[in-house]
Amino acid sequence: TMVTTPDWVKKAVFYQIFPDRFAIGQQQAIAVAQQPKLEPWEAPPTVQGYKGGNLWGVIEHLDYLQDSGITALYLTPIFQSACNHRYHTHDYYQVDPLLGGNEALQALLTQAHRREMKVVLDGVFNHASRGFYFFNDILENGPHSPWLDWFHIEDWPLSAYDGSLPANYRGWVDLRALPQFNHDHPDVREYLMRVGEYWIAQGIDGWRLDVPDCVKAEGFWQEFRCRVKAINPEAYIVGEIWCDASPWLAGDQFDGVMNYRFTEPTVAFAIGDRLQKEHLRGEEYRPYPALTAEAYGERISQLLQQHPWEIQLTQLNLLNSHDTARLLTLANGDRPSVNLALLLMFTFPGAPCVYYGDEVGLPGEADPDCRRVFPAKTDWDLDCWEFYRQLIALRHRYQCLQLGDYKIIATAGMGYVFQRQYGDETLMVAVNSGDNIIEIILSPDIINLDKIDIAEPVFSANGETVIDRNTAGLLLTMAPQSGAAFAII
Amino acid sequence: TMVTTPDWVKKAVFYQIFPDRFAIGQQQAIAVAQQPKLEPWEAPPTVQGYKGGNLWGVIEHLDYLQDSGITALYLTPIFQSACNHRYHTHDYYQVDPLLGGNEALQALLTQAHRREMKVVLDGVFNHASRGFYFFNDILENGPHSPWLDWFHIEDWPLSAYDGSLPANYRGWVDLRALPQFNHDHPDVREYLMRVGEYWIAQGIDGWRLDVPDCVKAEGFWQEFRCRVKAINPEAYIVGEIWCDASPWLAGDQFDGVMNYRFTEPTVAFAIGDRLQKEHLRGEEYRPYPALTAEAYGERISQLLQQHPWEIQLTQLNLLNSHDTARLLTLANGDRPSVNLALLLMFTFPGAPCVYYGDEVGLPGEADPDCRRVFPAKTDWDLDCWEFYRQLIALRHRYQCLQLGDYKIIATAGMGYVFQRQYGDETLMVAVNSGDNIIEIILSPDIINLDKIDIAEPVFSANGETVIDRNTAGLLLTMAPQSGAAFAII
Repeated sequence: TMVTTPDWVKKAVFYQIFPDRFAIGQQQAIAVAQQPKLEPWEAPPTVQGYKGGNLWGVIEHLDYLQDSGITALYLTPIFQSACNHRYHTHDYYQVDPLLGGNEALQALLTQAHRREMKVVLDGVFNHASRGFYFFNDILENGPHSPWLDWFHIEDWPLSAYDGSLPANYRGWVDLRALPQFNHDHPDVREYLMRVGEYWIAQGIDGWRLDVPDCVKAEGFWQEFRCRVKAINPEAYIVGEIWCDASPWLAGDQFDGVMNYRFTEPTVAFAIGDRLQKEHLRGEEYRPYPALTAEAYGERISQLLQQHPWEIQLTQLNLLNSHDTARLLTLANGDRPSVNLALLLMFTFPGAPCVYYGDEVGLPGEADPDCRRVFPAKTDWDLDCWEFYRQLIALRHRYQCLQLGDYKIIATAGMGYVFQRQYGDETLMVAVNSGDNIIEIILSPDIINLDKIDIAEPVFSANGETVIDRNTAGLLLTMAPQSGAAFAII
Repeated sequence: TMVTTPDWVKKAVFYQIFPDRFAIGQQQAIAVAQQPKLEPWEAPPTVQGYKGGNLWGVIEHLDYLQDSGITALYLTPIFQSACNHRYHTHDYYQVDPLLGGNEALQALLTQAHRREMKVVLDGVFNHASRGFYFFNDILENGPHSPWLDWFHIEDWPLSAYDGSLPANYRGWVDLRALPQFNHDHPDVREYLMRVGEYWIAQGIDGWRLDVPDCVKAEGFWQEFRCRVKAINPEAYIVGEIWCDASPWLAGDQFDGVMNYRFTEPTVAFAIGDRLQKEHLRGEEYRPYPALTAEAYGERISQLLQQHPWEIQLTQLNLLNSHDTARLLTLANGDRPSVNLALLLMFTFPGAPCVYYGDEVGLPGEADPDCRRVFPAKTDWDLDCWEFYRQLIALRHRYQCLQLGDYKIIATAGMGYVFQRQYGDETLMVAVNSGDNIIEIILSPDIINLDKIDIAEPVFSANGETVIDRNTAGLLLTMAPQSGAAFAII
């Protein structure tokens, strides 16, 4: 069967926003809760505190985002939740009051769409929260609750808040704050399907699905795709799957995943031994040990062969997120190596995704530090922002970066050269992530030497990359930690 | 200042519905939760179980109610709540999913209004529930919550579910299931005001306010009245106040209260020593000891002098509710004495309110037994229903019962005679709640003897009441436990 994915994603540049930390909009002043007790905006983030960012703040930054070249937003959860990251859903039909409520989302959708900007929301359908109505009823009524089958109750009494007693119900990764849905119950399934449909009908442009691999019910995501696409065939469905996502990427479930399988080798190659392992959490995400260009090429080739090409074009590529330390911090502040990782991402098939603040040089260790507030303008790294703007512009300028084939041309030590080709348009990208100058000779059988524009790269990062004709072909001389893209015309 | 109350209430006959127990409508089948675990409909009610009655069931009974003469519904709470009586509000903006959700309420309003029937909802604004978003956030985040000031937090940690530890927050009557709002916080006040406005704007015809005397914030109910009446000047605001409600009935707060102060003497007079005290709960409600007609008259006179007349006409008169044993059971099944209490209520100033099922003879001890399901037609007491229909028809036929002055004409032993007069229309009502025949002579200075229609009472209950002319005036002979109304023309 033919795999179809949304065309707009292939051309999109995403921006991931953690709404509590991005911006406090002024419109919020008319909301009901005018005096919430918030943490000081500038103080370091804590695990449980709220900063009070809201969707009005996102709206007020749309000009900035558009000016930067962003064409799509991915918001981490915005539904009513008694948790600052809002992965503990309290009500799937209400936008959190602190974020401005449903009214603010409608305003955001209107304003974003007016700019031809898309908005993707985070759907947390594996588990709910202790305050979620159907689970709360079980806490309140015990065995008398009508909703026992909606969750996995194992014994009585439940202990939702006292960790010294057994919870007696199943929570996601054994967290009692996150009671896991029983997706095998037809009412639960229908409930979640309707949530999926509802917000698409309300105008959102897609769903990022939280831990969808934990939902084991047969055909669940296939049905989800059918019902969502029936309302908007161009809706984007992207799963959070850290491991090999092949089972979900055959075309009948997701259009892509958060492409940590791209992140891992890219960071391992671009950051290499500069990576500060103490900022890593957990076992599933391994952006180390360092990779040579050859090893990197192998990993990338594997990844590109693993899923249908239509899916590759709509993967969500990222270098960090709310679930990881920021790359700048992982790289121990080494801007050049981060820039190379960015060049690799923006020239890779699939939609690049910028985590809010990265573009102005915001650092951050693992959660909660990676969720700092978006910095004041006076604290921006303006060179960094300019680098992003140019890279985003490059992505938009060349269709081959969005749609073109990916072909590795040469690898040597820490030198990595590939090309993207679409129709008559070809870009060659060369990256040297090592600390030494690298020379690579490109022979005529590798690349059409006549057509390459050797005069100027269309983009360059850090040090210089120079191309000279010699007898064997083209000699590529790459400065330490440099990258460049050349147009082949 | 002039006291103004809604005219429609003066002419209304209310019907109080406990939605979980009234009827399961068929429309519910399209709702999301198709397989809730419910208690068997016919089994005795339990404290925590759900029967699954819903608003579609109310809609399907509107013809029945209209046919019975009902013109207004008072529904006990219908907003999302993890409790079968729904006084533990989980979300003030959502009609409970089990009841059919907001869609079912809109359908009910449309269908009721099409019949010129009003719908009054129960507003529980003193306290919320443990699952209520703003309180739940405190349970989840402790001192980090933005909403600490919304409730009365006294110490940490909170213990919401473990009764062996101090709750450390204030609950209504010390119930930790019912965290009490801090009405002095402007955000809380505004939040509740907006709820009040919202549902009036959605088309409901009034609010019955739960324990409003517990809300101590200065000017709270005055503001509530202003804001509600600004949207619908004819909205009915009726408080649940069991004690002397004078402070709330000066015209600037409520249009009336649940008139237990009428219920008490009326039951004490009509039921008297037949009352089964073991079915009474608490101290605040005292429908005993038995009263003679004279003592009853004194209590009634006091009550009628206590509040402005405009308020008297819009009191909500009742003989029992979801908070008391049903009168039939309190009266040990003695239908005649219950009928006399009903006659007294339906001829009293203020809107009579029928508690669902009473009209077909449903018995019930104190909570939860007074919340049995509405019986199947085969179990109806058809004589009882006919009695109600005639009494309701009487109420509608005579404007003097709705609007007329109340004047006690005579009392003797257990014999009580009064008249209601409005313009040219006068009804005389005579009730003998005792077990002996009573003769009362009405002299010409008491009543205009020329105009009384001695031929036939316009309504009679139980035994016969006969009027004979004699030399002193009119001789009223009242059979034991009988009542009648005569038109004076």
